[in-house]
Amino acid sequence: MKIYFATGNQNKVDEAEIILKEANCEIEQIEIPYAEVQGRLEEVSAFGVLEVFEKFNRPVIVEDSGFFIEKLNDFPGTYSRFVQETIGNEGILKLLENETNRNAYFKTVIGYYDGDNIKLFTGIVKGTISTEIKDGGFGFAYDSIFIPEGKTKTFAEMTTEEKSEISHRKRAFYELKNYLENL
Amino acid sequence: MKIYFATGNQNKVDEAEIILKEANCEIEQIEIPYAEVQGRLEEVSAFGVLEVFEKFNRPVIVEDSGFFIEKLNDFPGTYSRFVQETIGNEGILKLLENETNRNAYFKTVIGYYDGDNIKLFTGIVKGTISTEIKDGGFGFAYDSIFIPEGKTKTFAEMTTEEKSEISHRKRAFYELKNYLENL
Repeated sequence: MKIYFATGNQNKVDEAEIILKEANCEIEQIEIPYAEVQGRLEEVSAFGVLEVFEKFNRPVIVEDSGFFIEKLNDFPGTYSRFVQETIGNEGILKLLENETNRNAYFKTVIGYYDGDNIKLFTGIVKGTISTEIKDGGFGFAYDSIFIPEGKTKTFAEMTTEEKSEISHRKRAFYELKNYLENL
Repeated sequence: MKIYFATGNQNKVDEAEIILKEANCEIEQIEIPYAEVQGRLEEVSAFGVLEVFEKFNRPVIVEDSGFFIEKLNDFPGTYSRFVQETIGNEGILKLLENETNRNAYFKTVIGYYDGDNIKLFTGIVKGTISTEIKDGGFGFAYDSIFIPEGKTKTFAEMTTEEKSEISHRKRAFYELKNYLENL
């Protein structure tokens, strides 16, 4: 089966391709824009995949990701990019000053729709927020303040290879792969 | 002319009614849901009014408001409700700790569409952010940290009458009224 991935990001397509070929699926990038609604990641991906399917009428996936901080009631969540571009990591560290609960997680939600089946697949990476920005030169956005569970380095201090082993997006794609294998 | 206001908030309808009857317009509330997209207030209202008109096919308005902080690159903006529900005013004050630039503003954008004309109307109230929460029992959300220009009290310390004289939403409705009078 061929699945079309509505995204402007070629790296995400490459990542999906490697995983989904294990389920004998071919991935092709399409650049069909869709409205990203306000709400939970699940809503963004569900409404997004419906809109893209309506325009394109072939099996499609969309993807949305966010960063969730326990002590801040899951802020910034869906609005992670906006928050990164406004208050940034300095703002996040300020909000968590003297705070002992530094739990956070990255989450990806993939929306899949083939005309018959509509499904959401989730991938999560749990961890904690560092007390200062630690940027080893890799990664971007929240990567320099996020230490994944069981590690001592932030995402931004890891190589692409190290980081890709614990990717929330990859985990969501494996969920999709398992589903497709049993379809 | 009769204009339909897509909102769940009766207070906003009452506010609009008083202003728009000066332009010989009647206002009626309709509860037609529409997707609120991510983006600027202008985009939320423009896409919203198009969607409602498509479903209802009569002159409609929608409204969206936000709170913008200069030093924080216009954070929280469109996502003001989400930010209020997650990090709250305590979070905002923390982000502005020891900060001298405390400029902020409230903004409303009304979207109007009658099938021929599509228009956006804006109302703004400028002011500053107080150094502590000052809640006189009135108001909600950002009202208890916002001191409008030329005043010494926060919105939350003013009576409904005092506050309504300097309402961003009211200003946007007056813009709409001026437009309708010359239509």
